[in-house]
This record gives sequence, structure tokens and C-alpha cells, in this order.
Amino acid sequence: MPMIGPNALFSNLLDDKEVADAFGEAATLKHYIAFEVALAYALEKAGLAETGAGLAVDQLAGTFQPDVAVIAQKTSEDGVTIPEFVRQFRAHVGETYAKAIHTGATSQDVMDTATVLSLKETAGILSGRIDQLNAALRSLCEQASGVEIMGRTRMQAALPIPLTARIDVWQRSIAAITQTLDEVTTSLPVQLGGAVGTRHAFGDKGQEITDEIAGRLGLVSSSSCWHAQRDILVRYADVLSRLTGSLAKLGQDVALMVQQGVDELTIRSGGSSSAMPHKRNPVKAEVLVSLGRYNAIHLSGMHQAVIHEQERSGAAWTLEWMILPSMCMAAGKALSLSVELVKSLDVPKT
Amino acid sequence: MPMIGPNALFSNLLDDKEVADAFGEAATLKHYIAFEVALAYALEKAGLAETGAGLAVDQLAGTFQPDVAVIAQKTSEDGVTIPEFVRQFRAHVGETYAKAIHTGATSQDVMDTATVLSLKETAGILSGRIDQLNAALRSLCEQASGVEIMGRTRMQAALPIPLTARIDVWQRSIAAITQTLDEVTTSLPVQLGGAVGTRHAFGDKGQEITDEIAGRLGLVSSSSCWHAQRDILVRYADVLSRLTGSLAKLGQDVALMVQQGVDELTIRSGGSSSAMPHKRNPVKAEVLVSLGRYNAIHLSGMHQAVIHEQERSGAAWTLEWMILPSMCMAAGKALSLSVELVKSLDVPKT
Amino acid sequence: MPMIGPNALFSNLLDDKEVADAFGEAATLKHYIAFEVALAYALEKAGLAETGAGLAVDQLAGTFQPDVAVIAQKTSEDGVTIPEFVRQFRAHVGETYAKAIHTGATSQDVMDTATVLSLKETAGILSGRIDQLNAALRSLCEQASGVEIMGRTRMQAALPIPLTARIDVWQRSIAAITQTLDEVTTSLPVQLGGAVGTRHAFGDKGQEITDEIAGRLGLVSSSSCWHAQRDILVRYADVLSRLTGSLAKLGQDVALMVQQGVDELTIRSGGSSSAMPHKRNPVKAEVLVSLGRYNAIHLSGMHQAVIHEQERSGAAWTLEWMILPSMCMAAGKALSLSVELVKSLDVPKT
Amino acid sequence: MPMIGPNALFSNLLDDKEVADAFGEAATLKHYIAFEVALAYALEKAGLAETGAGLAVDQLAGTFQPDVAVIAQKTSEDGVTIPEFVRQFRAHVGETYAKAIHTGATSQDVMDTATVLSLKETAGILSGRIDQLNAALRSLCEQASGVEIMGRTRMQAALPIPLTARIDVWQRSIAAITQTLDEVTTSLPVQLGGAVGTRHAFGDKGQEITDEIAGRLGLVSSSSCWHAQRDILVRYADVLSRLTGSLAKLGQDVALMVQQGVDELTIRSGGSSSAMPHKRNPVKAEVLVSLGRYNAIHLSGMHQAVIHEQERSGAAWTLEWMILPSMCMAAGKALSLSVELVKSLDVPKT
Repeated sequence: MPMIGPNALFSNLLDDKEVADAFGEAATLKHYIAFEVALAYALEKAGLAETGAGLAVDQLAGTFQPDVAVIAQKTSEDGVTIPEFVRQFRAHVGETYAKAIHTGATSQDVMDTATVLSLKETAGILSGRIDQLNAALRSLCEQASGVEIMGRTRMQAALPIPLTARIDVWQRSIAAITQTLDEVTTSLPVQLGGAVGTRHAFGDKGQEITDEIAGRLGLVSSSSCWHAQRDILVRYADVLSRLTGSLAKLGQDVALMVQQGVDELTIRSGGSSSAMPHKRNPVKAEVLVSLGRYNAIHLSGMHQAVIHEQERSGAAWTLEWMILPSMCMAAGKALSLSVELVKSLDVPKT
Repeated sequence: MPMIGPNALFSNLLDDKEVADAFGEAATLKHYIAFEVALAYALEKAGLAETGAGLAVDQLAGTFQPDVAVIAQKTSEDGVTIPEFVRQFRAHVGETYAKAIHTGATSQDVMDTATVLSLKETAGILSGRIDQLNAALRSLCEQASGVEIMGRTRMQAALPIPLTARIDVWQRSIAAITQTLDEVTTSLPVQLGGAVGTRHAFGDKGQEITDEIAGRLGLVSSSSCWHAQRDILVRYADVLSRLTGSLAKLGQDVALMVQQGVDELTIRSGGSSSAMPHKRNPVKAEVLVSLGRYNAIHLSGMHQAVIHEQERSGAAWTLEWMILPSMCMAAGKALSLSVELVKSLDVPKT
Repeated sequence: MPMIGPNALFSNLLDDKEVADAFGEAATLKHYIAFEVALAYALEKAGLAETGAGLAVDQLAGTFQPDVAVIAQKTSEDGVTIPEFVRQFRAHVGETYAKAIHTGATSQDVMDTATVLSLKETAGILSGRIDQLNAALRSLCEQASGVEIMGRTRMQAALPIPLTARIDVWQRSIAAITQTLDEVTTSLPVQLGGAVGTRHAFGDKGQEITDEIAGRLGLVSSSSCWHAQRDILVRYADVLSRLTGSLAKLGQDVALMVQQGVDELTIRSGGSSSAMPHKRNPVKAEVLVSLGRYNAIHLSGMHQAVIHEQERSGAAWTLEWMILPSMCMAAGKALSLSVELVKSLDVPKT
Repeated sequence: MPMIGPNALFSNLLDDKEVADAFGEAATLKHYIAFEVALAYALEKAGLAETGAGLAVDQLAGTFQPDVAVIAQKTSEDGVTIPEFVRQFRAHVGETYAKAIHTGATSQDVMDTATVLSLKETAGILSGRIDQLNAALRSLCEQASGVEIMGRTRMQAALPIPLTARIDVWQRSIAAITQTLDEVTTSLPVQLGGAVGTRHAFGDKGQEITDEIAGRLGLVSSSSCWHAQRDILVRYADVLSRLTGSLAKLGQDVALMVQQGVDELTIRSGGSSSAMPHKRNPVKAEVLVSLGRYNAIHLSGMHQAVIHEQERSGAAWTLEWMILPSMCMAAGKALSLSVELVKSLDVPKT
């Protein structure tokens, strides 16, 4: 989870509430519960929990209200949220079925699976906005039809090009990245390894249980756990940064195009200035550049976190929590801003 | 301001509420008001506002309740918080003295000065915790007196050293960094440049007004504005990362020292595990490593933001907002964790 | 191309001569010539160069000795190598066929295609070493069969695991990354756009010419140029960093496993010490960690370079030259060191 | 030492031969020898080597020709250059005085001191170029006297400013950074710690010997070794990145100012284009931006390397070697390019 530095003054400018919610405590707890319910069903099916355990845990989950404050308090000692979460959930479920909860699993199984579910939800949000952006760009292309601008290389006037040629570069980037986003999203696996990643507590039923949980959660199953092999998360982060980088190129281009003396595009509603009321600042275009550089920096952190020692690295894992949700929010916000920016652009009448 | 991704489950583990407050909306608005009040006094003194304007604005500020939601909403268009803030403040103050507010200034003057005031407050918080850490380390040194451990180079046993020799390295790093933190903190300047950084609206009174504001806010004056010269913020960020890096070295050392088979230190209360109740995990030591790597990554962003084009770069400036408060919070949290960690350490009886 | 800082003392430890050669001036000039020869054939086929131009240029290329020093000198003014290279090549070929050289193309077409050819060659080198590494790991697994070690999570002893379980994590990472490396390598496209990326000088023959060049160079054709859309290079860089990150995890694990008191592996021939002749330092394991962090940092730069303004950014493009070959060399060296390291490991007799 | 990727075609554009030489094998070996000679004198003075040892080693050093290839070969095993270097030097000096060489020291003492000497030499090179840059900027200010340009904020025309106001921002950044560079350079300490950093082999003469070596090498003495406390190197790297960042701002400004339609400056001799002979590309301005981003990325690596475990981290230390010389070269090159760029600028006649 990201470092938290709430300043409400900037929330509309920089935050992405929808993506933030996908990583907030409500969604996270929902994912934890979903994992434990799926595990209970799977344990029962494998004969490792008594008959009816799955349904019972499932039904009792409906009335479970975790005490967030207590979990947060214990997390500062445990470094993970799950020991106290499980304690509360077991207490809620009662003695009969308590053993169907978390048996054979470890904190990282629950937390990584929750992260993956948040990433999947994020991918859905991003996809919807990518569709909007593509539509806005197609509409801009129609407006731009037949218009020539000066092609500029190394920031110098070169030769005229169709305005649509520049827009086309933006579109192709997004298309390429969307393809990888889909590939990675449909590869997101459930996490199940148990204490040291070997699924030892499940005997010979480890794979069957993993398959069952994956099926119930709509995730890919995996033939082994990935506690210490973070490649899938890194691939997801790579896509996020490719996306924000491409949108930053769009933003940088727009900021250059609306310069006085260049005037290749205009923005209908730019930001106002406290000292110069006549200005219309390309605020959204600039923030796209900020978000692109922001994710490029953070990606470095995700790749540092690949160096994940032994069976579980508290240091590398915690670093992921501080970075990955922020990258998702930056990607979400960049898409929203891109849609708004492109819709606000006018092609000058020649 | 940082990307916001609140997840209450992790707030006790990763957030620094005190430092977060120094960058929150309440503190920020307080700083905005303080700037405008100081400016009103300065304008009056320079003969650019009518007599009594300073005191009048000062007194009316006491009852000013900015509408945060409206500022946030307008900020998403303006890219800065100040146009709407000033509109509200002027409306509150009334026509007579409205002209004493913000005259000759620009959004960046107010916002950069507010950032500097937040950094100064943060430095105070950090200093207090550094004192606590030094005390805890001195106490650990006393416990360690006469104890030998194996000196380890390249992760291999080398020759015995006093345990205090390893602790001494931690102490010296902190001492060196504290010195730079003090130097940078006492150099923090007020920002005053006006629309394009030339203080042109103040005629020949620009320096006098800057001195007056600086004096009232307890900041260093400056002979010219630094809208597009971000060196002082970068120097502050450098210190933050040196600090968290050094505490990460302490954390990494402790995590290695408490390994079974090494056993050079023990932690009285480590984190518990959902799968292995016998474990005492060096959670705080590991999170120190995470925070060190986190700030090392972010520092790269602050240095990217030095590339601040022309008289004001929306892209580079916004990037600072997303990074610098997070770096401060990471530094604050790393110090708190270090104090708690060092206090929880026991030197094994030989 | 990377910053050059040759220090022969460290060349055996840190350099990868084979990968360096793939980006050296000899290979680069060979690629430039190959591009221009393929273009001459393509122009001829498209009716844009006179009959026989392709073969003539091809044959004359065999005796062309570019003057490296003069190209280097002019590059410091032009920022690109091609204007002087083309001047020399045309002079060598003579007036008759000079027009078949570089017509319709631009410097970036030649240089990007050369980069892509170097990346393809690099991928071949990496693949060969990945095979060696996989063989070495299989052999280590055989040695490790039946051996248990202590599974360690958060750097604390957890529960016993088979030694092969830890090795298996290394193997699976490499397998996943190899798959992406293959995908990206087989997607590497030729670059052809002309002055402003529109292939305008080729009339309606742009695609045909691109296809022909791609076929002759063994690259993928592309329906449009990617002068300002750097996604494919970023994807390649992502894989490099995933690879070095995973090998760094292997290195970090080994460095921890050979600690005295842990003793889960031994290294037959470690580095010697000037002060402590008894030591056997896990040098290669440590350098793997260095290389992993090195590429994680550099990847951030490749993603910054995605922000590539207008039709060609000198700033972003030059940044790629300084980073991408270094990342390739780091990946190559990390693989070589991994092979040597894994082959040098012994599983302790229990 | 940096990753080596020599491509002679780009050497004039991107390399800094003078700074590269300060880190090359010749300079490095010269520093190693200087350290050992100073140590021999110091040991003699402290009564730990026989009378005459200092002078004898000093004189024999004059004829010592280290075998670079053999050192390089052994370094790939040892991870450090010194064991073989010392073996050769002792063999050259002969049995009588061999014991005065390296006694009580360790590889890191020699290598870190050599790095510090290279940094000191680099600082001298940088200082000379800073003087040239300041002179060129003063001259540009004279040309610009009385000229107004449009002040631009958020890439939009704001209000007119004197052209000298923009130049002044460049000058002030350089002045601030030069001051820190001087402070850090005059703080560069000798390294002396022995095998595990405790100077144990010198008995009670450790400080005396350190002082003597420092005095002979023109470095600051230190009251304890800094094997695992890398703060001074990080501070040096911070300055390098602040410098290249500020020069990148200058470069970015110039690239924007020479745009057609803006035309606030002209470059007398820009880069030529293979496709568009009419162009004059702001190559040096763009490469300044590349170098600024390059060092911002690398700085992140130096701060990662602060996390230097135990008494000596092979992983963190090696990472420094790969980064710090490259950062120095980037800084040197950025200064050279800045001088050339500023000298090539013309202020348009109004």
C-alpha cells in the first residue's frame, strides 16, 4: 500500500478515487474474505475440512465486520495484516468451522491474492478508460482531417505532416500497451504456498486446492507458489509505466503544440492563474508528464523488489506495497486526464 | 502532495501521521494564510497597501474558514490551489483590504513558501526523533560494552570486532546527516517572485517586501526568486534519502544479526506469523530497508524535477508535490521505527 | 551507446566483451551498411532506383572502410552518426549509384535499425547462456536431491524445505523471462520513416520498401514508423531488468546460504582477500546483486525516454543510447556470472 | 568503475576523456601506489616498519610497472584488484621492505582512497570548466543587455522579462552548486580501516598513521574508517546530479528558445540532418537534458548503495564502481557542452 499523505486540496487534481478504492481497506478485506471462503470450499472438497464447511464459512462471511482499527494496530507489530484478521474471522465463524479458515495457508497467500484481485479490478477500470480515450482520439482525428502541421524533429521545424500523423503515434502506443495489459491481466494467478511455499500442509491435495480457489476467484491457477518470484507483479508494473509514459508523450506534445507561436492546437478550458487572468494553462497536459515520470521512477522500485531473498522477503514485499498501488493510481489518473484533455482540444481553423 | 492511496489496514505500519499532518490541508491552508498576512504587512510597510491593511488582514484571517471542497474542485482545472483560495480570502476580508491580499504575488510564491514551512516543521519532527534515536543507540552501546561479535565482510566471517564498532558506524552516519539537515533547514528561503519571477509589481520595493515576509515567517530572505531554480528542495530531499539510507543500513544489519546461526542480537518483540506462531520476525528492521529503497527511488524523481523549463514548469513542479511529502513521511517513519527497533534489541549474554 | 569509462583493471570482473561487441563501432557500421544495402535493393525493386543499384551497392559495400575518426568528429556536431557516414558511403560508391543510398530515409531509420540488429544479436547471446544456466541448475538440483535446508521467511528460520524447492524458484523465473525475451525478440521491427516519419519520399511504395528491407535484415516489418513511439525498446529493456533482477535474487540467496552458521551451500572457489587469506568471498553472488540493482535503476531511464516529444526527440533518444547497451551488457554479464557461480556450488554433505 | 561499452562513433559526442582518464587504470594504479608509499612512510614513522622503509618503497615505486592483464584476471575471482596488485608490488620491492607494503590495511582502504583521489581530480576538472561556463554566461548577459523576451510559465506566454533574468537563474544555480562542490571536495577523507574496519593491526598508532597518509595524499584524515558508511560518496554524487540537472534546465530552456515561432535565441552552428540539410539542430542543448536525466537515474543507485551491510558489502560497493565514474563523466561532459553551447548562442537583433 502506498505511503499516505492526504491533502484534500490536491485530491481532485492528482487522486484517482476509483483506483484508490480498489486498494482501500474495504476492497482489501473483501478480497481477504473471498480468499478464505474459497479456501474453505477447497479444503472441504479435498477432504481436509468437514462437510459443509465451505458453505458455512461463506454464509457467516456475510455478517463478518472486521475491526479495522485493531487489525491496523496489530499490523504495526506483525508487519502483515493477516494474523489478526484470521483471529477475528475465526472468532466470528465459531469453533466448529474455525479450522476451515486459513488452514495450510500463510499471510502472503491471502495478501498476494488480494493484491492480484485489486490489480484485476484496476485493469478493468483502465480498460474502460482506454476505450473512452480511443473514442476521443478518433473524434480528434476527424476534426484534424486534412489539417497540416509542421513536423518537428529535435524541437526544430522539419517538414509539414498531417496532424493525424502525430495523433496516430499516440493511438498506436495505446493499442500496443492495451494488448500487453490484457495478456498480463489474464495471467494473474492465485497465490497459495503455505508457510514456506511448499503447500506441505495440503499433502498431495495442494494442486487441487489451488485450482479450486483460482476457479472461485476467477484467477489463473499456478503449479507452484510465487512467494519469492515476483515476476507477474513486475510485468504488470511494466505495463503501467509504459502506459503513463505514452500518455506523458501525448501530454508533452500537447503542451508544445499549444505554445504561442506554434499554435497547432488550442485547449478550450485551461487552468487559470492567480497573477495572469488571461492565461489558459495546459494543466492536464503537464500533469500527464508528471505522472509519466512518476511511474518511471517507481518502476525502478518494483524491479529492485524482485531481489526477494529466500522464501519471503519482508523488505522487498513491503516495498511493493508502497509502490504498486501508487503506480495503479497514477495510471488511472493519467487515463482520466487524457480523456478530458483530448476532449478539450480544438484544431485551429486554418 | 503525494498520490493518495489510503488503506487504513497499513496505516500504523507505514504512515507517519505527524509528518503527514505537516503536509495536510489544515497545515497547508494555515501556511497560505500566514503568507498572505505577512505580505499584507509588507505591502503596507512598503507603502503599497493602505495603512492598517496588515493588521486588518491579520485579524480577519482569524475567522477565515476556507471551503476546502471548492478549492479542491477548482484546483483540478487550475493546476494550483491559489486562485480559488485567494478569491475566498478576499471575499472574506472584504473590499477595503482585498487589494492587500496577494497583490504582486503569484500562486507559486504562496505554494512554495507553504512547502518550505512544511519542510521546516518536518525538520523539527525529524530532529526530535534523531535525539531519541541517539539516546537509544547510546543505551545499546552500554549494553554492548565488552561484547565481541564476528566482523563480517562480503557476508563472510572475517575477524572479531567489538559490537560497539558496528553500532558506531550507525551513529556516525546519523551525526553527519544531522549536520546537513540543520544546514539545509536554516537555509530554507521564502519564495517571492510574482507572475514571472521578477518581482516587477513591487517596483523598487521587492527586496524590502521579501525581507519583511521572510522575517515574519521565520524563513531566510532571498535576493531573487527561485521559481525555476529548485536546488534548495533537492538538497533537502538529498538529506532525507541519506537519512533513510543510513537507517536502512541499520535495519539490514539488524535483520542479518538476528538470523538463527548468527544470533548477534535478539529482538524482544518481533512480528508474529499466521502460519508459524513460533517466529519473531524482524519486521521493523525490514521496513527500514523498504523505506531506504523507497526514498532512493524517489530522490531520482526530485532530481528529474530540477529540469524545470522557463519561468515555471507545471510538469516538474507537480512532480515535486507527488514526491517530496512522501519522502518526508518515509524519513519520519524510518526514524520512529529505528527508535522502536533499537529499544527492542537485546545483546545476547555470552 | 553507454558512457565510456574504460578501466582495464575491472574489465574481467564487470564487462561483457561479447555483448559489448554487439554494440561496438564495427558491428554498428556493419548494421548501417546492411540497412543501406537493403534499402538500395528495395528502392530498385520499387522502381525508385535504377536497375542494378541494389547489387552494385551491395558489392561496393564489401570494400567500404568507413573513417571512424571522422564520423566520430562530425557526430559531436550533428548529434547523429549518419550524415557523415552516408557522405562517406556515397563517395565510396560513386556518382552512379549514390542516389540509391539513404534516399527517402533519415538518420533515425539507420540508427534505430542498427540498434534493433544489435538487440537481436544480444538476444542470441543471452539465449545461449540461459541454456547453459538451465543445465547448470539442473545439475545442481541433482546434487541437491534429498537434501533439506531450513526454509527462511523474513530472514528467520521457518520450516524445513527441500533444497530443490529454493532452486526451483530460480528456474521458474528464468523460464518465464525467457518466454518474454523470445516474444520481444521475434517482434523487433525495422525502422523506416524518412525525415518526419511519414515515408513521404517513397510515394505509395513506403510499405513495400519497408517489407523488403525487413525481409533482407531478418526483422519484422512495420506498418508505420516508430521514431517517436519507443515501446518496443522499452519492452526489451523490461525483460533485461526482469532477468538481472531474478539472477540477483539467485545471487542474494547464495550469498545468504554460504554464510557461516547457515552453511546451506559452499562455493568451491571464492574471492581471496588482501587482509584475510582464509576467506572465500561469494564475489559472483554479490556482483549479481549489483547488476540487478544497476538494471533496475537504468530501466527507470528507459521509461523516462518514452516521453519522446513530437516527431523525434534528441534528448530522449540520446538517453536511450546511454542506457540500453549498458543494460544489455549487465544482462549478459549476469548470465555468465550465474553460470560460473552455479557450477562452483557444492551441496554440503549432511 | 562503469560498465564499459566502447563505441568509438559516439565518443566525441558523449565521452569525457579527461574525466575518464581520472578513473582509468593508469590513474587508478598511480593512486594505489601513492597509498602504499604513504602507508610505508607512516608505518616507519610509527615504528611499525623498519627505518628507511618509506623512502625505499617510494623510490622503488618509481620503477614499478604493474601487469594490468594479470590484475584484471585475478580481479574477476577476487572481486577486488588489490590482492594481486599487492603481490606484484611486494615482489617488485623485494623481501626487505615487502612488509612495509599494505601491512595493516585491506583492499578497501586502497581502493576507496584511490576513488577519493579520482574524485578530487575530477572536482578540479569540473571547477575549471565551471569558470569557463561562468565567463561564457557573463558574456551572453552582456549581449542580452536590454533585450526583452516573453516570460513563459507552464509553457504559456505570461509577461515580458529581461532575457538576462532567465540567464540569471542558470547562473545562480551554478553558483550554489559550486559552493557545495567545494565543501564536499575539501572534505574528502582518506580510507584506513584494516580487515574489519577497526585499525586493529596498528595497535594504538591507527590515528597517527591515518593522519600521516592523509597529509601525504592531500586528503582529510578521519577519526574512524568509513568502509560501511558511504555518506561522503553519496554527497559527492548528489552534487554531480544537482549540477547536471541545472545544466539540463539550461539545455531545455535553450531548446525551447530556439524553436521556430519562439526565436528567443539562435545557435550559430547546430547539428546537421541527413534528410533535411536546412536544419540546425540544438544538439548540445538536447544532450544536456539527456545527461541531466542520466545522472538523476544514477543517483538513485548511489543511494541504494548506502544500504551497505555489516563491515563491507561486496554488492553495494561494486554498484558504486559501476555508477560513480559514469556520473562524473556525465557531469564533466555536461559542463563542456554547456560552455560550447553558451558560446554558440546569439541574441536575435530586435
